[in-house]
Amino acid sequence: MTMPPSPAAPPATGNGSPNGLAQPPLRARRLGLYTQHQPIVFMRTDCHVCRSEGLSARSQVLVTAGARQVQATLFQVDGDRLLAREEVGLSETAWEFLGVAEGDEIRVSHPPALESLANVRRRIYGNRLDQRAFSEIVTDIVAGRYTEVHLAAFLTASAALPLDEDETTSLTRAMVDVGDRLRWNAPVVVDKHCVGGLPGNRTTPIIVAIVAANGLVMPKTSSRAITSPAGTADTMETLAPVDLDIAALKRVVEAEGGCIAWGGAVHLSPADDIFLRVERELDIDTEGQLIASVLSKKISAGSTHVVIDIPVGPTAKVRGEDAATHLAARIDAVAARFGLSTTCVQTDGTQPVGRGIGPALEAFDVLAVLRNAPGAPDDLRRRAITLAGAALEIGGKAAEGEGAALAHATLESGAAWVKFQAICAAQGGLREPPRATYVRPLLAPRAGRVVYINNRKLSRLAKLAGAPEAKAAGLHMETRLGEEVDKGQPLLRIHAQTTGEMAYALDYVARAGDIIEVEP
Amino acid sequence: MTMPPSPAAPPATGNGSPNGLAQPPLRARRLGLYTQHQPIVFMRTDCHVCRSEGLSARSQVLVTAGARQVQATLFQVDGDRLLAREEVGLSETAWEFLGVAEGDEIRVSHPPALESLANVRRRIYGNRLDQRAFSEIVTDIVAGRYTEVHLAAFLTASAALPLDEDETTSLTRAMVDVGDRLRWNAPVVVDKHCVGGLPGNRTTPIIVAIVAANGLVMPKTSSRAITSPAGTADTMETLAPVDLDIAALKRVVEAEGGCIAWGGAVHLSPADDIFLRVERELDIDTEGQLIASVLSKKISAGSTHVVIDIPVGPTAKVRGEDAATHLAARIDAVAARFGLSTTCVQTDGTQPVGRGIGPALEAFDVLAVLRNAPGAPDDLRRRAITLAGAALEIGGKAAEGEGAALAHATLESGAAWVKFQAICAAQGGLREPPRATYVRPLLAPRAGRVVYINNRKLSRLAKLAGAPEAKAAGLHMETRLGEEVDKGQPLLRIHAQTTGEMAYALDYVARAGDIIEVEP
Repeated sequence: MTMPPSPAAPPATGNGSPNGLAQPPLRARRLGLYTQHQPIVFMRTDCHVCRSEGLSARSQVLVTAGARQVQATLFQVDGDRLLAREEVGLSETAWEFLGVAEGDEIRVSHPPALESLANVRRRIYGNRLDQRAFSEIVTDIVAGRYTEVHLAAFLTASAALPLDEDETTSLTRAMVDVGDRLRWNAPVVVDKHCVGGLPGNRTTPIIVAIVAANGLVMPKTSSRAITSPAGTADTMETLAPVDLDIAALKRVVEAEGGCIAWGGAVHLSPADDIFLRVERELDIDTEGQLIASVLSKKISAGSTHVVIDIPVGPTAKVRGEDAATHLAARIDAVAARFGLSTTCVQTDGTQPVGRGIGPALEAFDVLAVLRNAPGAPDDLRRRAITLAGAALEIGGKAAEGEGAALAHATLESGAAWVKFQAICAAQGGLREPPRATYVRPLLAPRAGRVVYINNRKLSRLAKLAGAPEAKAAGLHMETRLGEEVDKGQPLLRIHAQTTGEMAYALDYVARAGDIIEVEP
Repeated sequence: MTMPPSPAAPPATGNGSPNGLAQPPLRARRLGLYTQHQPIVFMRTDCHVCRSEGLSARSQVLVTAGARQVQATLFQVDGDRLLAREEVGLSETAWEFLGVAEGDEIRVSHPPALESLANVRRRIYGNRLDQRAFSEIVTDIVAGRYTEVHLAAFLTASAALPLDEDETTSLTRAMVDVGDRLRWNAPVVVDKHCVGGLPGNRTTPIIVAIVAANGLVMPKTSSRAITSPAGTADTMETLAPVDLDIAALKRVVEAEGGCIAWGGAVHLSPADDIFLRVERELDIDTEGQLIASVLSKKISAGSTHVVIDIPVGPTAKVRGEDAATHLAARIDAVAARFGLSTTCVQTDGTQPVGRGIGPALEAFDVLAVLRNAPGAPDDLRRRAITLAGAALEIGGKAAEGEGAALAHATLESGAAWVKFQAICAAQGGLREPPRATYVRPLLAPRAGRVVYINNRKLSRLAKLAGAPEAKAAGLHMETRLGEEVDKGQPLLRIHAQTTGEMAYALDYVARAGDIIEVEP
């Protein structure tokens, strides 16, 4: 097809002069707007670029500043309410992606066509995808090109027709490929992961200390809390700095063999964070996504041997033994394709572990176990020994069946405590966790036996009390399943740093129904 | 479980005084922000309500003003950049939902738990849903309680495992139940729908005129363009006012038997608009959703007999005859459950209908056909006669096989033109469509035969030229499939109201590849 000569053919994505007249450039304006990862731009409805590009509210747009780009959602504003004539307002996420300064020139245009969405549509209609299709999807997702609708469609399609082993492997590889990858000068690099859902299950600092004390390399990166009252990074932060970049991480691990750092500063498997956010909003959990999530993080971290803790219980993430066995088999099979050795350990998921729920309260439990304190929570100690034992076996430091004994000895001798202090010192110094100002007990309504503990309600209660933002806030359990209690005896204690948060927590207790059930 | 007496138990969703101290109320501030239906609220990160309620960026929140509520997405802003201390910024959608004035007191709290999401999850995992489940879902959707992620998950799940006939019926009923419903004092109320995807297919105004001229009641409500260069309402608006409320609609129909109005002013099947928006973003089309969409609108409009135009062609929505036959059977079956009579008519979907694409250009075609003008596009005329004939038969004004002849006679006698003018007068007065300032031809690159027309590219081109916002903009086709053309002969003409839009359109022609293929 030919055309008559065009008077002023603009560039395909040109701003400013579609009609041959110079238009003033657009200028970046920082709005200080937090949107939880969503890049958003604000433009005036009367902006010449919106008009010439045919952009309307909720269009996806490509924003360019120098050599950097971000795809964003467009919101439009009337007249002068928020923006001067040529200003483009940017959310913090968009601002950081672009690395601009106030008033820098930016360009806004239609984004390129999202070709990988055809793969998502094929998957919706029941076709299985290959490695290339998953790689295209994950690349676009990490580049910020998928809207919430696109992300939800991809995850829903992978739940409606569950990912098979090949697909799970392809997704895992795609997630590894788009992130950074750590490399260690050691033939064996041990890691540990917990499938999650159990409050207070803070074994990681203890396991790292035991394993590193036995000469294995264990560079552990952990997350902060997402929906729980505390992540391992939140708890560890009350004991030592955790915000280590890759250089600091390497230095600590080279010196001490292990670390317990926050994973957010090292960009391992960035797709995983995006998937988790959407899965949380849908409250769905699929095996394929779970496996790709765990394994992509471990492979990116340079691990060779991984122990996986699968708590099983009615209010834990995995609710039955069969499901746990099936999950473990699938994890082992997919991990093997990447040359990764895994040991899955099913653990009791019927009640919280230790006494504390919340960053500082869990840290006190960890310290008590490491120090062999008389009142140290036995369940946490035994669980840490089991998992550390599995790590010592898989890492070749103990024969099969003898790992737990070695872990136990390492703890009892004080070697683990010495190693833990050395790791904390290398990370920036061991410190004392804070204590809450306000403590209120929750009393047993009758005499009887504790027959049921709702982990989900406990988590909610701890969060209302202020955890994890308020480091000292949370719960201290005073009973466990099967124990006899008297009427009026404390079942747990709520810790809060403000009276307002305490009031919210108590209000929740009044309307949540039984959090801990006592049967006469 | 009992509690020690609480010093200041706050209300469950209380703002302002969780700790017993009076806090200043929050005040509404209008931001003039267009988000395409998404209610958004902006609060400061240091706002006492965000702190006490534990709200963070992208939380879903319940906003209350007096007796009105809206569920919204929360964005947080730093310090004084956008908001004064106790201000809550509202997007236009949120502002309209709440009906507030500047500075009115509002409350922000956690929204109630979204129970119907459990139905969506069950559907994702392959369980079919009953009437009650669909009703719960659709009720929550229309109340604005579903996020984009939730909506996408529901639609994806209904595509991955297609809705069966029972489910399609349940969804249709749920969509009808949440909207308004028109009632007419007539035993037969005729309607017409086109499954869509074909530019220029503007038969509706002609059909309504023919059908109403024969004494049937046909209160037609149509949509504006969503992704196409013109909707029926956009085209009709160049000829007469279409923005009629229910009272005006009834008045016009009582006087003339028919109307051609914009459906947006009457809230029929509000869920449909939400589903369409998300399906468009995913670019998926499923049979069940399509049927529920069409039938819920027709049932809500009070129709008893509906003719459905199904254009079939490689770049139309329905791509093959088998698919069309299957779709028609399913439409008939579901419609029958609501006592609605349907006639599905398969039509040629291989190329645009008429000569014009764009509001005014299509209106000129409509006028030419109604006026029996010598150059009137024959394909549009024949198609309108076929569909009007089907409507006359289904509505009982013509025996089977004789509807087309009656429609033809009604058109040729001028009765349809007289009726059309009367309808326009009743709607507010017939007017002349506008004409574009700039017209540029697209020339055949070689001599030969026109073998392929890409409807999707034509639509894109017409939109770049300014349609539908610029009423006079669009395309005028100068060739049809199978015609012989000389090199340099115009294939179509682009109409635009600004040189900028013309330049964008020409630029697209240069990079889009063949829009109209000419084979030597």
